[in-house]
Amino acid sequence: MKYPNGIKQTKSSNNHIKYDNRGMNLEKDLNDSNNYYAEIGKAFIYKKPTPIQITKVDYPSRSHAIIKEAFFKEPSTTDYNGIYKGKYIDFEAKETNNKTSFPLDNIHKHQIKHLENIHKAGGLGFVIIRFNKLNVTYILLAEDFLNFINENERKSIPIKYFEEKAYLIEEKYIPRLDYLKVIDQILGGI
Amino acid sequence: MKYPNGIKQTKSSNNHIKYDNRGMNLEKDLNDSNNYYAEIGKAFIYKKPTPIQITKVDYPSRSHAIIKEAFFKEPSTTDYNGIYKGKYIDFEAKETNNKTSFPLDNIHKHQIKHLENIHKAGGLGFVIIRFNKLNVTYILLAEDFLNFINENERKSIPIKYFEEKAYLIEEKYIPRLDYLKVIDQILGGI
Repeated sequence: MKYPNGIKQTKSSNNHIKYDNRGMNLEKDLNDSNNYYAEIGKAFIYKKPTPIQITKVDYPSRSHAIIKEAFFKEPSTTDYNGIYKGKYIDFEAKETNNKTSFPLDNIHKHQIKHLENIHKAGGLGFVIIRFNKLNVTYILLAEDFLNFINENERKSIPIKYFEEKAYLIEEKYIPRLDYLKVIDQILGGI
Repeated sequence: MKYPNGIKQTKSSNNHIKYDNRGMNLEKDLNDSNNYYAEIGKAFIYKKPTPIQITKVDYPSRSHAIIKEAFFKEPSTTDYNGIYKGKYIDFEAKETNNKTSFPLDNIHKHQIKHLENIHKAGGLGFVIIRFNKLNVTYILLAEDFLNFINENERKSIPIKYFEEKAYLIEEKYIPRLDYLKVIDQILGGI
């Protein structure tokens, strides 16, 4: 299985593996932006915790628990959801180092189905895709994302499709990724 | 800190502690009901994974990762959220063995603040409280829950307050806890 965003294994001396922050930039930018939105009361959108199956726990004292064995589970929904302008918001966020297309194996089948459900239920679903090497971050609406998947056999979405259908997110100081500005545009146009 | 719903430690022979399902009944009933709602396309509401800080991972093969050390983190939001009839839904669910009141230390300050934010943002926030010994499960709207907290110094909400302000959830076969029926009543009345 694929490991969650932002988790990378590096060997450490004792044969355990420690984490560092591959792919954490987009996640960090989104978390910072979401914290800012929450602080000013604009929107309440959060990243869900990584789903984990816990199988063993040590309990050295009454007030402490140490998980000693656990496994990553595949997420059944997208990573982010919340409320903005009274509307249900739901999205998945991914980065790629690919310069010409976004590889679809980055997003699980469950997550694609989930975005379809949300779209049908009247929620605002989308994906946020960052092309690291091109320094651009796009919002692609669930509708356009699902259309591409349903109408193409390809295993990646070419950058051209983003240029045509997606919305570019402006990067600035605060919030780092002002994606709700794009959402305003979209809501205004619906 | 408090441990997440449904997690209880029991000593096992090798001094590790295994999990069993204290307080899992309400969670299981809600998950089953939410799965049912999702299957029939009525609502898409999910429990968020338990937040965990991972500090050590073993990586015995390319396709496997075993978490070897991790810690429970305090949740910053409620456990459940999603979409129903186009509306953003957000709630926390707790059981108590207390027969006369619901102890407020079961719900973190962050979660109370979160429910307040959701309520102000126009989402439908509430708590689902099951009194195990009384065999009753209530929905108390965020508004009434917050009013009690703001107007009282008490550390628990008496059952009388639930009897007056909350909505009883019918228990049946499928779905086990038809809480959206209550939500229909509430939405109809707003």
